Amino acid sequence: MTLKKKLHEIIFEAETPEGKAFDIVLIILIISSVICVIIDSVEPISTNYKTYLYILEWFFTIVFTIEYFLRLWIIEKPLKYAKSFYGIIDFLSFVPSYLSLLFTGTHYLIVLRTLRLLRIFRLFKLIQYVKESNIILIALKESRYKVFVFLFAILNIVIVIGTLMYVIEGEQNGFTSIPKGIYWAIVTITTVGYGDISPKTPLGQFLSSAIMILGYAIIAVPTGIVTHELSKAYNKKSVSTENCPSCGRDGHDTDALYCKYCGAKLNE
Amino acid sequence: MTLKKKLHEIIFEAETPEGKAFDIVLIILIISSVICVIIDSVEPISTNYKTYLYILEWFFTIVFTIEYFLRLWIIEKPLKYAKSFYGIIDFLSFVPSYLSLLFTGTHYLIVLRTLRLLRIFRLFKLIQYVKESNIILIALKESRYKVFVFLFAILNIVIVIGTLMYVIEGEQNGFTSIPKGIYWAIVTITTVGYGDISPKTPLGQFLSSAIMILGYAIIAVPTGIVTHELSKAYNKKSVSTENCPSCGRDGHDTDALYCKYCGAKLNE
Amino acid sequence: MTLKKKLHEIIFEAETPEGKAFDIVLIILIISSVICVIIDSVEPISTNYKTYLYILEWFFTIVFTIEYFLRLWIIEKPLKYAKSFYGIIDFLSFVPSYLSLLFTGTHYLIVLRTLRLLRIFRLFKLIQYVKESNIILIALKESRYKVFVFLFAILNIVIVIGTLMYVIEGEQNGFTSIPKGIYWAIVTITTVGYGDISPKTPLGQFLSSAIMILGYAIIAVPTGIVTHELSKAYNKKSVSTENCPSCGRDGHDTDALYCKYCGAKLNE
Amino acid sequence: MTLKKKLHEIIFEAETPEGKAFDIVLIILIISSVICVIIDSVEPISTNYKTYLYILEWFFTIVFTIEYFLRLWIIEKPLKYAKSFYGIIDFLSFVPSYLSLLFTGTHYLIVLRTLRLLRIFRLFKLIQYVKESNIILIALKESRYKVFVFLFAILNIVIVIGTLMYVIEGEQNGFTSIPKGIYWAIVTITTVGYGDISPKTPLGQFLSSAIMILGYAIIAVPTGIVTHELSKAYNKKSVSTENCPSCGRDGHDTDALYCKYCGAKLNE
Repeated sequence: MTLKKKLHEIIFEAETPEGKAFDIVLIILIISSVICVIIDSVEPISTNYKTYLYILEWFFTIVFTIEYFLRLWIIEKPLKYAKSFYGIIDFLSFVPSYLSLLFTGTHYLIVLRTLRLLRIFRLFKLIQYVKESNIILIALKESRYKVFVFLFAILNIVIVIGTLMYVIEGEQNGFTSIPKGIYWAIVTITTVGYGDISPKTPLGQFLSSAIMILGYAIIAVPTGIVTHELSKAYNKKSVSTENCPSCGRDGHDTDALYCKYCGAKLNE
Repeated sequence: MTLKKKLHEIIFEAETPEGKAFDIVLIILIISSVICVIIDSVEPISTNYKTYLYILEWFFTIVFTIEYFLRLWIIEKPLKYAKSFYGIIDFLSFVPSYLSLLFTGTHYLIVLRTLRLLRIFRLFKLIQYVKESNIILIALKESRYKVFVFLFAILNIVIVIGTLMYVIEGEQNGFTSIPKGIYWAIVTITTVGYGDISPKTPLGQFLSSAIMILGYAIIAVPTGIVTHELSKAYNKKSVSTENCPSCGRDGHDTDALYCKYCGAKLNE
Repeated sequence: MTLKKKLHEIIFEAETPEGKAFDIVLIILIISSVICVIIDSVEPISTNYKTYLYILEWFFTIVFTIEYFLRLWIIEKPLKYAKSFYGIIDFLSFVPSYLSLLFTGTHYLIVLRTLRLLRIFRLFKLIQYVKESNIILIALKESRYKVFVFLFAILNIVIVIGTLMYVIEGEQNGFTSIPKGIYWAIVTITTVGYGDISPKTPLGQFLSSAIMILGYAIIAVPTGIVTHELSKAYNKKSVSTENCPSCGRDGHDTDALYCKYCGAKLNE
Repeated sequence: MTLKKKLHEIIFEAETPEGKAFDIVLIILIISSVICVIIDSVEPISTNYKTYLYILEWFFTIVFTIEYFLRLWIIEKPLKYAKSFYGIIDFLSFVPSYLSLLFTGTHYLIVLRTLRLLRIFRLFKLIQYVKESNIILIALKESRYKVFVFLFAILNIVIVIGTLMYVIEGEQNGFTSIPKGIYWAIVTITTVGYGDISPKTPLGQFLSSAIMILGYAIIAVPTGIVTHELSKAYNKKSVSTENCPSCGRDGHDTDALYCKYCGAKLNE
């Protein structure tokens, strides 16, 4: 087996022991590098462990760079990979570090540093192997139109109530503009309730009571939709649509070989 | 085909290419005009882009005016349309702009400006075409009595606990009246929790812990109701639409071979 | 028909037109009197409309007094009624007003005034007629043990985390005692989040992030329980447990007269 | 029956009257001792009732010590018990009190005092007897992978949005580091919303509106998962436990007449 073929097996396949080991090492590297970026923003730590973080950062950068070019070299269609979503994510996981050598402004550096956090999306590629996530994704995919319709309705309610509150409460109570009112309405209808803006007038408090109860009641809608779609996604596997060739009845389990009603053999 | 007939097809029908194009243009116009009203309330923008917003506003007003009178002219029963919910919404989408020419008080102007936001309800007319929204509407319609009973129970709980907190906490802790206590109870039971009023006494904190856990547990009730109704709305299709050839009654299960009312054999 | 019999029909029965009218008048009186008690606590209103509220209050008191003694006179077992839950509620709906004549301390008066609000529970007696509420009550009754187990688990989690936060954050960050910590944990796990007490130390913020996500995930448990029980309560009515006397199979609808599988007549 | 055997019956079995009585006494002791620990942290109470709390504490400690060594003496494999989860919990329920005699620093004392609260976990051992809790545990166990995948996705979203907000809002608005931003994102996506940190810039408010609505919509996912698993745990009973008399396999529907694997007639 050529080196290229061997590497392909390690990097792109998850079944062989080497492939599994590679994936686990990669996950550990990604998570470590994300933790580095996160703690690099915490004041006392970033100053005290500056050198260690710097060395670690360049270690991750170089590893990810090598991995990226290995992938490019091994894969059959390098251009297609480079232009795919995960190709771009892989590319963005090391480029910001090199760019930070070119730029010197502090603000640019912060942005570039945080861009390295995009590495986290690399984990999504790996989670696809977890079969549990498929059923959730199917259910979410199936319910996307209904949830979209629901969110559209929420958006309308939120715009109307946010505007009403802007008129009722006015600037003196923190509702300085319609977007601010809409922001407040979203904070309220989702039951987040920061309290940075809260109604002061009796009429405003009455209206916000109404929107709170509305928000409390309509959370049932997306829940109901997703619950139904999840049930459907689960059950799809277990009930066959096949009819019995003898008595013609359906509702057989997918693992059934004989009709449960008349005992005739089912077609496979 | 006469102009009137052609226009009828464009404005009232959604199947033809022209009808679809008209609907899309209308949606874009409505959304743009709503965005205009919203950003018109944001301080620096409304001052800097005063002229542009003014021109845009009159452009939308004139287009909606023309559209309204076209509808009146084309439709068979203009009076019925004018008095319908959407007829009034269509009317209110341009009238406030004309009224703002007559009134000069600042407060009236703000109210009139925000009234233009009612245009947003015009979008609801268009969402009806989305078939995904039907099943949600059916489920909500079916569950309305149960949700009403639930909200009635919530209202009673909230009044009793709001009053109790008014007695326990008193004016010095922000519970200045029973309506304020009820407002607090709603903020709490819906898990919004602004924190503008919060219990200070140990007894008050104990009681509010109770209402929080209550609110956390009973959210299950509307969720359960809507989930059940959604399932029912989806499954309605699994009841056969077939009528018994003998007694003519329907409502048979899809796996029924004989009429459950008269015992006659059903057609397959 | 004697006066007593006629009154019995009006007061205790809901089928006759007079009975219905009586119930509606009673609901209006209860709601009005509750509104009176509520607005009596709002400062400017209670001072400005003192006389009107006073007259109204005595009007309600006298009507409820007459109603109570009428019930006592008409009913077969007056003592049983007087000692029942609703008998006590009916009694408490007018007694506080008379007691307020005897006491003069301001605080006693406030308590007595708010006691009148117990009238609201009289509405529950009337809601029993609404058949929609039965199915919710059945589902809640069936799920009470499971919800109790769930709440017990929550209580334990909340005590442990509240204590941990008391140790971690300490008095200087508002966690002055374990009960305060538990109160905070309840505010957090139920996603209310007042913000009157919030973690300040990094460790405290980390632990509270954990409890938030826990609270966010486990809300699914009571929801799942109630949803399941509601489905069961709904379906109980529609599927008969009866077996076909001919082919022995079950799963027939409750309104089925003939077996849907073999066409034999079902036992009634 | 020897004393040892008799004690084994009382302490380890729940069916006999003595076993039941022992369990109830134990539950009361545990709850009382937990309440003692809790109120011991409340300032005026702990000073005023110091002696009583001290005596009670030692009473509980001695009782739990005796109980622990009785268990060790009676049980067949004492070492296995001592190393089990509940063995450690039982041990930790009395040891901190003895340790508090050795240490004198105030902070150590507080930690030791609160460690006694671990007694609460002893209640979990007893709740296992409640059969209602089994179905919840089964459902939670079945859904753990899916909920884990869900929480992993939440964690990624929260890290990305927390970092974005750190860049957008910056230190001047309370987002002093990425972990702080992540903490804020968790507070927001779980709809807790303390309000200790809240977005101030328009862009930040827009982004937080998005994450709120996201949090509001995706709560449906764990709810759907747990609801489905609960239904499955309940319905498991509706699958027949009968084995095929011919091929011996099970998993037949309750309405199956013939084995779905080999076509043999099932016993009724």
